[in-house]
Order: sequence, then C-alpha cells, then structure tokens
Amino acid sequence: MKSKFVVIEGLEGAGKTTARDTIVSVMREQGIKDIVFTREPGGTPLAEKLRDLFKRGTDGELPTVKAEVLMLYAARVQLVETVIMPALARGAWVIGDRHDLSSQAYQGGGRGVDQDLMTSLRDTVLGDFRPHLTLYLDLPPLVGLQRARARGELDRIEQEALPFFERTRARYLELAAQDESIVTIDAAQTLEQVSADIRQVVSQWLQQQEDR
Amino acid sequence: MKSKFVVIEGLEGAGKTTARDTIVSVMREQGIKDIVFTREPGGTPLAEKLRDLFKRGTDGELPTVKAEVLMLYAARVQLVETVIMPALARGAWVIGDRHDLSSQAYQGGGRGVDQDLMTSLRDTVLGDFRPHLTLYLDLPPLVGLQRARARGELDRIEQEALPFFERTRARYLELAAQDESIVTIDAAQTLEQVSADIRQVVSQWLQQQEDR
Repeated sequence: MKSKFVVIEGLEGAGKTTARDTIVSVMREQGIKDIVFTREPGGTPLAEKLRDLFKRGTDGELPTVKAEVLMLYAARVQLVETVIMPALARGAWVIGDRHDLSSQAYQGGGRGVDQDLMTSLRDTVLGDFRPHLTLYLDLPPLVGLQRARARGELDRIEQEALPFFERTRARYLELAAQDESIVTIDAAQTLEQVSADIRQVVSQWLQQQEDR
Repeated sequence: MKSKFVVIEGLEGAGKTTARDTIVSVMREQGIKDIVFTREPGGTPLAEKLRDLFKRGTDGELPTVKAEVLMLYAARVQLVETVIMPALARGAWVIGDRHDLSSQAYQGGGRGVDQDLMTSLRDTVLGDFRPHLTLYLDLPPLVGLQRARARGELDRIEQEALPFFERTRARYLELAAQDESIVTIDAAQTLEQVSADIRQVVSQWLQQQEDR
C-alpha cells in the first residue's frame, strides 16, 4: 500500500495527542512501521522559529494578520518540501498534528481573513498537495478551552475570546462538510468513545486503501 | 501635494545609498521635509528578524525557495501595513531601499520562481498597493559585484554565481520596460552623472505631480 499523509485537526483541548496514539496503534496493527510525526506550525528548525515569531512576535511587535498568514505558509511549505514529501517518497507514513485546514479555520474563519485570499494562497503555495485523510475532532470551544486551561497551555491565540473559537469551529465544520477526505469525529464524547470512533474510521479507511 | 512612495531598486553595488541621498536633496529643495526611510527585506523589528532568518537560515537549515518568497512577503506586508501606509496617511513621504520589484527580479528572475506564482502572491498580498515612482539603477552585474566586494558586503544571495545576477538584471529590465512608473537609470556611468540623471528624473516627476 502506498504511504499516506494523515492529519489530525481540531481546537485546543480536542484531544489531538490521544487521537495520534490511537491512529499509530491502528497503523501498527496493519503492519505500518515507518511513521513520521509532524506538527504545524513548525516541524523543522526554521519552521519552529517562524512558529515562535508568529506566536510571540519580537521586540513588542506582533505580526499583522496578513504577515501571520504568510509566516504560517512559509513554515508549512518548508515542512512539506523538506519533511513530508521526502518521507512519503521513501514510503514512510506521515501523521500531522494540524496542517492547512488549521489556517483555513483559524485565520480564515476565526480571524476573518478573506477566504479567497486563503484559498488562493493555499493553491499558489501548495499546488494540489493535500492530506489523504483528515480527522477533525469537533467539540464546543468552551469544553476545549476548559480542557486546555487545565493543562496550563493557553497562549496568545488561545487566549482570544470565545467568539473567535466559535468562528473557527464553524469554518472547520463548513469545510469538513465540503470535503470527503475530512472526517468529523465527535470529540465531546468520553475519551474511550472518541478513541473507538477514530479506531473505526482509520481501520475502515486503511481497508479501503488496500482494496484499491 | 499628496505624499508619495518612491523606491530605489538595483543589484548590489548599483549605488542605491547615493541615489537615496540625491532624492532626499531634491525633495528638500521642493520643501518636502517629512521623509521616512525603509529598507527591504526588513524595516520593522519583526521584518528584520525575518530578513535575518531568510538570509542565514537557522541550525544549518536554509529556507526552500518557496519558503524564502513567503518570508519575504510576510516581511513586506508587515512593513507596508505598519510603516509605509501609516506614514503616507499622515502625509509623510517614503523612500524605500528596495520593494516588491526586488522579489520579482531576484526570486522570479534570478531564482527562477514561477512568474505566475510571483505575480499572484504580489496581487494576493499587496492588492493594488504600488510605489508611485521606482528608480531602477541598471548596471552589468560584474561591475556591481566588484563595487560591493570592495565594501566587503557580500552575503549568501550576493555570493551566488554571476548567471543569477544576469537573470535578475534581465527581469528588472523586462519589468521596467512594461511599467511607466519604473524609470531605468544607467548606473554604470560616473557617480556624478548618475546623480545628475536621478536629480533630473525626480525633479521632473515632482513637477508633474504638482501639475496634476
């Protein structure tokens, strides 16, 4: 079976790390051993620097929303060209903690960056490179925020008001509804139930890939 | 007279700093006192960080050519939105040491980034924001390199082979020929003659702005 790029998406506190463990476990059971993990924004030294600069700014200066989007795409294309594409080319599977859908949802939906600009940038920068499967962990922002807060993990983006996350979630749901390769998982369920759902979706999807 | 954005372009060693002094002197003679200077890539703390990261990379990792272009545009939009546009809005004139034409020439021409990608990025990111006047200081790359070398100022970009600069110059000339707002100055002349040419172009242009 040709190796694939699988992405986990969702608001903070949605359970992306647990989801990753579940996906790895299903893949291992299917005999997939060479798995590369990425996280975005970041994943290479340069992309991590960009992530840091994008989150914290420098000398008291934060990026404008357009500069933020361009820094995200710089980090993403660096990761895609130097890590993800080479890994897929040598037959490794790639599991991504976030990818382009995060930008579409957070910057496009949450921050209200013009959607044409967002899709134009995506197509200009990434061409037709897309994840083969995306699991979107959906839950009400308030629930996610409470979970993330319990871990003490809130940063600038996460501290923004709840309406921002409501807009982000709405865009996630809208884009998931339009795209067959994005599967929405109800992440407000118990951890066990979420894991069971993920296990089922990934197993079935892997089966379909083999059948092709 | 409404304030304007004037840009100086050209290969390293073309004499951009001297050109700036000449432009300032002509502007002052016309009673223009509030002048803001920018340089690209850079010009704000964040944009300078991006410039540094773009030129030197980090931990031995250099940006891919697409990441490089996106970092340049991140730095540029940050400068345009937080420095150039506010300056113009309060009535200050802006003199830029490089702007978008450099990306079109160096990355588009020199590095061979797809021209559609370059113009699509420019239009997506900057909309219809353009300099009112651009002075392109044209000279054979070898002459410019020899001048820059004498100042000990060569960095990664500047160390690339001569063909790179030939392609960059060719794109500069091609774009200057298509755009009325770009005036080509023969920078291979003596400094005195170059200054005289710049003085004449800028004086005449300022006169035209007043007549409108």
